Amino acid sequence: MAVNLEAARDLLPVAGVRLGVAQAGIKHAGRDDLLLMEAAAGSTSGAVFTRNAFCAAPVVVARRHREATEPRFLLVNSGNANAGNGPSGLENTLRTCRAVAALAGCAPEAVLPFSTGVIGQPLPVDRVEAALPEALAGLETDGWERAARAIMTTDTLAKGRSVRRTLPEGSLTVTGIAKGAGMIRPDMATMLAFLATDARVPRDLLQRCLAEAVEGSFNRITVDGDTSTNDACVLIATGAGGPVIENPSGAGYAALREAVGEVCTHLAQAIIRDAEGATKFVTVTVQEGATEAECLAVAYAIAHSPLVKTALFASDPNWGRILAAVGRAGIEALEIDRVGIAVNGIPIVTGGGRSAHYSEAQGQAAVREAEVTIQVALGRGACSATVWTSDLSYEYVRINAEYRT
Amino acid sequence: MAVNLEAARDLLPVAGVRLGVAQAGIKHAGRDDLLLMEAAAGSTSGAVFTRNAFCAAPVVVARRHREATEPRFLLVNSGNANAGNGPSGLENTLRTCRAVAALAGCAPEAVLPFSTGVIGQPLPVDRVEAALPEALAGLETDGWERAARAIMTTDTLAKGRSVRRTLPEGSLTVTGIAKGAGMIRPDMATMLAFLATDARVPRDLLQRCLAEAVEGSFNRITVDGDTSTNDACVLIATGAGGPVIENPSGAGYAALREAVGEVCTHLAQAIIRDAEGATKFVTVTVQEGATEAECLAVAYAIAHSPLVKTALFASDPNWGRILAAVGRAGIEALEIDRVGIAVNGIPIVTGGGRSAHYSEAQGQAAVREAEVTIQVALGRGACSATVWTSDLSYEYVRINAEYRT
Repeated sequence: MAVNLEAARDLLPVAGVRLGVAQAGIKHAGRDDLLLMEAAAGSTSGAVFTRNAFCAAPVVVARRHREATEPRFLLVNSGNANAGNGPSGLENTLRTCRAVAALAGCAPEAVLPFSTGVIGQPLPVDRVEAALPEALAGLETDGWERAARAIMTTDTLAKGRSVRRTLPEGSLTVTGIAKGAGMIRPDMATMLAFLATDARVPRDLLQRCLAEAVEGSFNRITVDGDTSTNDACVLIATGAGGPVIENPSGAGYAALREAVGEVCTHLAQAIIRDAEGATKFVTVTVQEGATEAECLAVAYAIAHSPLVKTALFASDPNWGRILAAVGRAGIEALEIDRVGIAVNGIPIVTGGGRSAHYSEAQGQAAVREAEVTIQVALGRGACSATVWTSDLSYEYVRINAEYRT
Repeated sequence: MAVNLEAARDLLPVAGVRLGVAQAGIKHAGRDDLLLMEAAAGSTSGAVFTRNAFCAAPVVVARRHREATEPRFLLVNSGNANAGNGPSGLENTLRTCRAVAALAGCAPEAVLPFSTGVIGQPLPVDRVEAALPEALAGLETDGWERAARAIMTTDTLAKGRSVRRTLPEGSLTVTGIAKGAGMIRPDMATMLAFLATDARVPRDLLQRCLAEAVEGSFNRITVDGDTSTNDACVLIATGAGGPVIENPSGAGYAALREAVGEVCTHLAQAIIRDAEGATKFVTVTVQEGATEAECLAVAYAIAHSPLVKTALFASDPNWGRILAAVGRAGIEALEIDRVGIAVNGIPIVTGGGRSAHYSEAQGQAAVREAEVTIQVALGRGACSATVWTSDLSYEYVRINAEYRT
């Protein structure tokens, strides 16, 4: 069902990072569901976590561990979110970290845990522990694509991207993988993303780089308006061969920032292209706003509207629903006769009403495309914002109605 | 598909109100789609309209006319919302008001227009005008049930309710009808409701009575989070035989307020019971909040969650999704280990985690019911709030994907 998306391939190794997977049988047998990602000693990290008040146990532990030290291992399981499990959930997560530490000979705090899957079921720690030696033994620099597959839940395709830039100081590689297909909205989602670069970057600057990239990518997508308890995005900088980047005003940081942004944007859009039940990839761009915040409010009102999304699924240019969504976005003193709406470049609403030259046939042709851009002009200023979303199909309902059965 | 809902019947006439319907063929031939409701001279009115910035032409005109004078006629059509039609939409609405005025011998300002149906298509004024004589000739005090049917769009059942109260000053009757099944959320929705009482009530007091009743009823329901451009709710007080109610502190007002509230709550719940594709009627009650506003925020986060709603459709007690929705409601300093969740009285989450005695079988039995109450305790205070919603089914997608075809 994914919209114009191919499975991750040609992912570039990042010097200093090795990845290993294993079949722990956490939810289903016979598939890789455990990922161990090793970062060379001396690596720095940036990390962003869910803003949901109900943090899953692994999020609580990963935050705490990262405050104590830099990570040497990321341990990721799919099939079980280890969320809503109370104190025993925390203890189970800690047990898996201690198990990695014992096998690999590092401090338990140097292990960051991540889980994704069903909420509220105990994590089968024994199965995780039993599978760890296999993951550890399989660590390899070429493991990115298998890793991308191991962290999938309802994803239909593995998601990953590599970018290489040549700087005067040498070449810079950024590779990232992500999973996520539902429970997706800004402020992170049921989404895990792991990126690495071979550059050497101080922790604070790396954190800033990641935060900026996430704001313009993962925080601009929505499938269903639901945020999850488990979201996390981590960027590792190994310093194993890549350039040293320490000056936030320098060309090196600009190149890193741009490369990380490109990987994050690709991964964020890949999540939407693979959104549960999606038949269309929808870009909502709101322009001529007085502030970026009001542009975002309008964009999300459209992107969250089940009525807009079902109309898109039906390839119905029902612009009245877009207009109604603009109207309910809560914009103070919106002058509706200055509002314009275009779909894939076809002006539909001009001056708050149907465009004089618009024909239903034009609109239908526009929304029949698999890639639909909804462009709204508010006529209030020079700010703009873009979000990406999907349509709402029978398949979305089926996937989410049957998820636990 | 409606959940435990019967078509409106046994609606009581209200002295001073007559209703007539006609087949104007606005969207489909062969069904009543025009309603004329006459209020006796001397009637007062209260009215509440959509807060959507894009008001449909009839909403603009109805507001303006009601500022000029008290209404003698409400003119309602289904099948076409006359929204998003620019200046010609306004002119078309005014034409229909003038047509009623000419036939009935009143001022055009004494006619309040209402439309519901597809947005962005010109209102076929000629057909409305041609059908008006039939509606006018058919005016009768017993016309409430036919009226309730004439204003339906995707509704599967006509919605109406009567309440009679006996006061020392005499008996008081309140009858109301409503339509609406989608594009429903607080701040009114694609919803029309018309109520009348035979009491004599000054306009300001009647407005207050209606506003209070709407706040606790129509403003507490949501199907899909979408508000419409056409919402309106009107309460007429004819003073034709009922008690005179002038003192907001008196028993008469209390009885009126209670009766109007009962009719509004019935109609609001009827809209949810008949929500597009609904298989369940869901009550979300949030208790122990510090403020009513935060209780409402949590209740709507749950009621708007497509993941909660698809799980309910599947009769899956996926309480993790409820918990995640509570967590993303934006409540400052929420202490998650004080949060409790129960479904139809079965405690599922206690102290932020799965209840010790909860079994999946219990949860499944609870959510298999057609009427599901989700009860959340925040452990922060003594405030509470309740909203009503429906589940999200294949049928919802089908109805809204095929609406214009």
